[in-house]
Amino acid sequence: MSNGPTIYVNGKFLLAEDAAISPLDRGFALGDGLFETIRVENGRPFRLGAHLQRLRSGLTTIEMALPHEDGEFKAAIQELLSRNRLTRASVRITVGRGVPEARGLLPGRILSGPTIVIQAMPYSGYPAEKYETGFSAIVATIRRNETSPSAYVKSCNYLDNILVRMAAAAAEADEGIMMNMAGNLACGSVSNIFVVKEGRLRTPPITAGILAGIARATVIEIAMRERIGCLEEDLTTDDLWAADEAFLTNSLMGAMPLTRVDSKSIGNGQPGVLTGQVGRAFEDLVKREAGSVQ
Amino acid sequence: MSNGPTIYVNGKFLLAEDAAISPLDRGFALGDGLFETIRVENGRPFRLGAHLQRLRSGLTTIEMALPHEDGEFKAAIQELLSRNRLTRASVRITVGRGVPEARGLLPGRILSGPTIVIQAMPYSGYPAEKYETGFSAIVATIRRNETSPSAYVKSCNYLDNILVRMAAAAAEADEGIMMNMAGNLACGSVSNIFVVKEGRLRTPPITAGILAGIARATVIEIAMRERIGCLEEDLTTDDLWAADEAFLTNSLMGAMPLTRVDSKSIGNGQPGVLTGQVGRAFEDLVKREAGSVQ
Repeated sequence: MSNGPTIYVNGKFLLAEDAAISPLDRGFALGDGLFETIRVENGRPFRLGAHLQRLRSGLTTIEMALPHEDGEFKAAIQELLSRNRLTRASVRITVGRGVPEARGLLPGRILSGPTIVIQAMPYSGYPAEKYETGFSAIVATIRRNETSPSAYVKSCNYLDNILVRMAAAAAEADEGIMMNMAGNLACGSVSNIFVVKEGRLRTPPITAGILAGIARATVIEIAMRERIGCLEEDLTTDDLWAADEAFLTNSLMGAMPLTRVDSKSIGNGQPGVLTGQVGRAFEDLVKREAGSVQ
Repeated sequence: MSNGPTIYVNGKFLLAEDAAISPLDRGFALGDGLFETIRVENGRPFRLGAHLQRLRSGLTTIEMALPHEDGEFKAAIQELLSRNRLTRASVRITVGRGVPEARGLLPGRILSGPTIVIQAMPYSGYPAEKYETGFSAIVATIRRNETSPSAYVKSCNYLDNILVRMAAAAAEADEGIMMNMAGNLACGSVSNIFVVKEGRLRTPPITAGILAGIARATVIEIAMRERIGCLEEDLTTDDLWAADEAFLTNSLMGAMPLTRVDSKSIGNGQPGVLTGQVGRAFEDLVKREAGSVQ
């Protein structure tokens, strides 16, 4: 009897090794799909509603129907967590457009309905020390294409991000930061970026061609609540070099202090005070909403 | 007993309805794969060697190993054509990176080896009248991102192309033409573009962020052989508006006369003389190499 993980595929819970989708699915053939990655603490997905809302918004952009209620996703995730005996996890929802009647780029009639895959994996964040020593990045040569609606949705077209991440790894950096066509900062391969200047947060606006990160929105909410403030405005690498602090965000990793980009130190080269404040507030919020503290 | 098509998946020939890949394949999850589309006439794939060479070149770009000889692809395609009783077909080869050991963007260790899917479908070109009346296009709002290596490989990240094609269809046009970041003409969602000016062909260079189309290379070869000449140089929409003729190319459809873009006529609004000459030479070449004429 196998002890491998169980995953959800179109309403069924299957051992990952037995799970199957059609090779004709447009998700596989053309990258015609979207996904979400959600953090689970204490058995509860953090801001699942916001993730599902973003998913539905993205599906509208690419004109894909999703005849599933939020409740079905919630129930499937709970069942997956239970079957995989996980209370701390990263959950991924992938939606492919399904098997088309005809070849070609136009979706036309879809024979199968959308293909929905949900995975719950043990959560593997960076070790705590990493948040104390800081993260490094390179400025990537691949730019973000803000002229495309696909820049604003979490699509399965991740080859650019993969290549950026591979270039970062080759440079022994943790992340690659993309500029957009206009030459402004956009985002990392798996993160949004914030800089701190004179006690206030600044982050590229959505119009810079970025994904509206759930962690990004959470950090802005925290900055408002704690009266730090956050400006959404176009930033350049010069703003990064002149920053007092900088950090990256994503749903799984929270606020990651960015202390070195290319070979330059950001601020004093140490994780910043406001970064730490925001990062702790983020973790507190995740744990509070998960009901594990007060 | 089913009469559905047979497809090839990782060495096996299966009814399409029974064929399966893992939902954890990075091809499905992240669009981490490449493909080729090949025209078959008289049971023979046109320029299969060039397609496989481009596939291997693209795999090198994205650092994916493919431990399969060209002969294996050739044999699989012949077997597929035979099993599906096709002599005229479009063949698609898709290569996904396979199932990774760990989540995240870095490929890391791949547990499965690459996922190889080959389909042979009845060839469905446009009707002959379409080449006599001409094709229409829009200039797309989505630009081609020439800063990314993925612009130069035939990757499964086709969401931009899908959205361009959908926008074209909504405007009742046959194709959408993308400009690149620099503001020059790049290519269509499924085609390369040529203009004719003063008896000579002109087409955007590869550096414009385009896929090196096999049909594009074939047309350049024809233009050289027939002493028409072809310049590879950056072109703008102004060059399109001022062109005597224009046409689009791809492996399945050959040279498609482009007679209307947005609401403007190209040249005199009729398929051009050189376009017709090149188009016939292309078809002759396909049929000659397929051995169906001399």
